[in-house]
Amino acid sequence: MGPVPEYTLRQLAYLVAVAEAGTVAGAAASLHISPSALSDALAEIDRAFGTPLTVRRRARGVSLTSAGHRVVERARGLLIDARELVDDLRGAPGELVGPLTIGCYPTLAPVVLPPLLHDFGGAHPRVDLQVREATHDQLEGRLESGEVDVAFVYDTLVPGHPRRETLYALPAHVLVSAADPLAAADTVRLEELVDRDLILLDAPPSSAHTLALFATRGLTPHIRHRVTSYEAVRTLVGRGLGYGILVQRVANPASYEGYPVVTKEISPTVEPVGIDVIWSATHEPPERVTALIAFARTIDWGAVGR
Amino acid sequence: MGPVPEYTLRQLAYLVAVAEAGTVAGAAASLHISPSALSDALAEIDRAFGTPLTVRRRARGVSLTSAGHRVVERARGLLIDARELVDDLRGAPGELVGPLTIGCYPTLAPVVLPPLLHDFGGAHPRVDLQVREATHDQLEGRLESGEVDVAFVYDTLVPGHPRRETLYALPAHVLVSAADPLAAADTVRLEELVDRDLILLDAPPSSAHTLALFATRGLTPHIRHRVTSYEAVRTLVGRGLGYGILVQRVANPASYEGYPVVTKEISPTVEPVGIDVIWSATHEPPERVTALIAFARTIDWGAVGR
Repeated sequence: MGPVPEYTLRQLAYLVAVAEAGTVAGAAASLHISPSALSDALAEIDRAFGTPLTVRRRARGVSLTSAGHRVVERARGLLIDARELVDDLRGAPGELVGPLTIGCYPTLAPVVLPPLLHDFGGAHPRVDLQVREATHDQLEGRLESGEVDVAFVYDTLVPGHPRRETLYALPAHVLVSAADPLAAADTVRLEELVDRDLILLDAPPSSAHTLALFATRGLTPHIRHRVTSYEAVRTLVGRGLGYGILVQRVANPASYEGYPVVTKEISPTVEPVGIDVIWSATHEPPERVTALIAFARTIDWGAVGR
Repeated sequence: MGPVPEYTLRQLAYLVAVAEAGTVAGAAASLHISPSALSDALAEIDRAFGTPLTVRRRARGVSLTSAGHRVVERARGLLIDARELVDDLRGAPGELVGPLTIGCYPTLAPVVLPPLLHDFGGAHPRVDLQVREATHDQLEGRLESGEVDVAFVYDTLVPGHPRRETLYALPAHVLVSAADPLAAADTVRLEELVDRDLILLDAPPSSAHTLALFATRGLTPHIRHRVTSYEAVRTLVGRGLGYGILVQRVANPASYEGYPVVTKEISPTVEPVGIDVIWSATHEPPERVTALIAFARTIDWGAVGR
């Protein structure tokens, strides 16, 4: 065994908290300790590492030295692993125990969360599943800080992320009211839609995706209404006010008002949109996280709403 | 007839655009004219009013003088009325014609928009109905600038707005899965729920409202999952993962996955939440807007989802 580290896990956690809060006062408040106790801990950890990790500037908060940056970068993974040791002991051998926070792009939540929370959660009752619905910019950094363990996103949303697996991919479909003549067609061509009224789901990445489908065929759709929610598209289509272009499919064939809507495939086939699970690139996920990812891979997501 | 004004409607529109953009360059771009043409118009309108309406400061953009503020305040209504004259002429006598933009708080959209767009829009085909889903902060100023003609909001969201009418008011209800023992009860007491798992709709103003319902009875609910969308609550409740507290009611008794959910009234009765229509406080709405407001009052909103 090598030398015993002279710093404590508590000091390390304090350093990470200061790095995240940017001020001693903010970090102390989030840790529920006094600012002076936190200042003492910062001085101690500098001594333990033999070099200053933080610089305090009057009225400008705390910044990390380059050594501090290097320590914080690795400290998060170390702290996550340290918590794992405790969680492991709390469970019977082979039992999954501990917190697991699922990040989810908001429009995917009604499709992705039920099997994860109900089926995986039911099979592993000692895993404390929490949910954070988050947009792309809110997800940045949360996987590395351990705030979120896995996230479910459209593949276009976090394109550079290195740790990812595509769970399923769905082509966009056309949504029409049950009374629409197109409801009886086998498939629908975008050329048939171009002069009709489009109810556009005007939220990223949906709007850009829909317009690109038409643009690649040299077409410009006639946008009648722009709405920002998935269900607003379904209710307006159900009322016969236009057609919709959506990716996500749901089993319930009726809108909130009870009017039926019909899903039609597009011909010729359009490029499918991938739904990915992503996880931390800087620390190995604990066993319960890899188990959730493995579980997510077993679900026949593509069958939802077919 | 009094004296003919020495300024033009175009100059007035340019002044308003400058007031909104804050810079000559920004306003010129939004008007698709050159900055120098805009500068000339600003000088001309100063001459016409006999006093400077704007002050240009190098690198600090354009600001309004106090006279300029007074002119801009009334100019918006004047410009809207001026556009009305044209719209009036375009229609047959008594026919409603022209643009009408409906603002809508996003979670109300699937309930509020269908009757307005389908029934009112169908009865008045020459009214060009547009929709802007907007949160409270995005609505501020848009009614006065004429960007939005009417908006549908929760009464707690824009509390100080002077021109408003409450269309309907609904008390919060409890949502449980069809398999839940509470589904068979006549009503549900909050005390019966407090130890069960709550799926919290964690979006303003819903979360504060739900927690206040419990707090006024000295209770703190057990929050199992926080989700930010209405349908995520319904799907998780449909899977039996907890109960929900929602205000908005929908006719469709099944979640997106097809699982039925059941609405239960709360006993003793809780304070209803009002859904209001609001409109401009500084200019009189044109006839098509007052017609839409009158139409909205005729709808039996409270019957939706009962």
